[in-house]
Amino acid sequence: MPKPFVTLAEFAALLGDLPRPDAEARAGAEARNGQLTKPPGALGALEDLAIWYGSWRRTDRPTIAAPQVLVFAGNHGVVARGVSAFPAEVTAQMVLNFEHGGAAINQLSDLFGAKMDVHALELDRPTADFTLEAAMSEEDCVAALRAGWDAVDPDADLLVTGEMGIGNTTSAAAIAAALLHGSAAEFTGRGTGVSDDGLALKTKVVAAGLQKHEDHLDEPLEVLRRLGGREIAAMAGAMASARMHRIPVILDGFIATSAALVLHEAADGALDHVVAGHRSAEGAHRRMLEAIGKEPLLTLGLRLGEGSGAALAIGILKGAVACHSGMATFAEAGVSDG
Amino acid sequence: MPKPFVTLAEFAALLGDLPRPDAEARAGAEARNGQLTKPPGALGALEDLAIWYGSWRRTDRPTIAAPQVLVFAGNHGVVARGVSAFPAEVTAQMVLNFEHGGAAINQLSDLFGAKMDVHALELDRPTADFTLEAAMSEEDCVAALRAGWDAVDPDADLLVTGEMGIGNTTSAAAIAAALLHGSAAEFTGRGTGVSDDGLALKTKVVAAGLQKHEDHLDEPLEVLRRLGGREIAAMAGAMASARMHRIPVILDGFIATSAALVLHEAADGALDHVVAGHRSAEGAHRRMLEAIGKEPLLTLGLRLGEGSGAALAIGILKGAVACHSGMATFAEAGVSDG
Repeated sequence: MPKPFVTLAEFAALLGDLPRPDAEARAGAEARNGQLTKPPGALGALEDLAIWYGSWRRTDRPTIAAPQVLVFAGNHGVVARGVSAFPAEVTAQMVLNFEHGGAAINQLSDLFGAKMDVHALELDRPTADFTLEAAMSEEDCVAALRAGWDAVDPDADLLVTGEMGIGNTTSAAAIAAALLHGSAAEFTGRGTGVSDDGLALKTKVVAAGLQKHEDHLDEPLEVLRRLGGREIAAMAGAMASARMHRIPVILDGFIATSAALVLHEAADGALDHVVAGHRSAEGAHRRMLEAIGKEPLLTLGLRLGEGSGAALAIGILKGAVACHSGMATFAEAGVSDG
Repeated sequence: MPKPFVTLAEFAALLGDLPRPDAEARAGAEARNGQLTKPPGALGALEDLAIWYGSWRRTDRPTIAAPQVLVFAGNHGVVARGVSAFPAEVTAQMVLNFEHGGAAINQLSDLFGAKMDVHALELDRPTADFTLEAAMSEEDCVAALRAGWDAVDPDADLLVTGEMGIGNTTSAAAIAAALLHGSAAEFTGRGTGVSDDGLALKTKVVAAGLQKHEDHLDEPLEVLRRLGGREIAAMAGAMASARMHRIPVILDGFIATSAALVLHEAADGALDHVVAGHRSAEGAHRRMLEAIGKEPLLTLGLRLGEGSGAALAIGILKGAVACHSGMATFAEAGVSDG
């Protein structure tokens, strides 16, 4: 593993030298796929998924035995502007709910055999209101990236990153609009369910943030520092760390994808180890997935965060890998191959 | 349970008097859903799924502990016309593969904790070539319906019906075209992967079947008898039997949906206990799902049969039920509800 980073520039440098998938394992997995007892292509997207997964795990016959779900929580100064339907206290209350096993992500992690860890990131010290100043100092942003980086279990074989943070759809919308050069209106949605008036206010707040920082939005990591939040930075750090360990990642929804976008804009191919778990009901998520070139595995109208949509997709990826690695070949089963 | 049926008319009569979901359980599940620690609607389709499932299981807090996967296999006389890319022997070879645990459906059943049973239905006695005569006598058709009916475990709490039968996309296309008043070309696809010439031939064979029986296609069960196959009839029988036991069903792809269409056309609401697991890559499946008014949970390009797409969706339904029944309420978790 490379040395840990202590500045944003060092983190950016790490992203410039990322491991690649194993070409030999990919070729072996493709060959195996062609011999399994099914018509060619009949398992659809599952076939590509299993081959992709094997290429990162460096084997033509992979298994998924140790998925990890990481949930990062952070608070946002911009909540003072009235952008959320819920009060900021809910972030800490939900962290307790995660710790006591009562949230959606707990049920989904248990169902799919994933180890779930929750990291509350300085909830008593919200980020600054990004309409007034940068959300984070460089020190704070690096610390949050490192929190994510260090949270990844090197022995995991699959990672989901999720989040909780009242106000963080506002932050994610600002990041996405900045990185994809769109307007506040194009990227701002209802989040947990704000009213029409709430949406109008939230859009104005995002626009104000974009205007405040307009001269400093060329560097993706600077966008993260100025408009992001600790949980968003932590997800970016965790996804990058997973890449170093060749741990494939299932991407969650709108907020997680804002973190992924930072990596995508910072380095070509930075998301090659990432598959999109679902498309969120938050409207702009479609455009963000298109920007990173990922087709979602699920489109079930979820908009909860926590990693829930990605966790639900663990079952799909496990199914793909189980078929690929567990099925008999035509020769083994004595089946005529047409 | 009603007495078993010995004629198609008796089976039709059973379909006229089906159990309904439990309104009280539904109301209780809806109330519980509104109290769970998430913004209203944030779990999207999972919320409706869990409520629907509870209404059939007569509880506001259901669990899924005993899914059953039934795979029926049958052979088709119409294969002599050259409609498949695989020889008819593959049906029996794949039955052995199912029995030895080597097929896709074995891996998916194991992954999602489903008990899988395979029923080979008189493979040495294919149905008749439906371009020349009815595929099945009434006796044969009733026997196949009964094979499905009797195969359902009354203690199962979820059912997937799958199939294997070289030539059965030809049969399913003919059934769907007859029941939905479409042309052979609209419903005939490539199945396991026939060539352009093969597709043209297959379409002609379906058209010939529709023409041969054109004066006898008003009764859905008669359509099944004349154009269907044993495994298709067995799936229809199993889905009807599940309804009697209030066991929800996840519907598989093109062939399974042809069986479901027979029930749907035979009795209003006959598929109210059924959810569509996936949309197959077989083109006409979209139109069939629209005809039965079901939105598929997954669209991953599968076209394998065996129940594989529906089995993959077991994870989605389990996820929905796990969230619904396992999550804490706002009051239990001490979370502010906005």
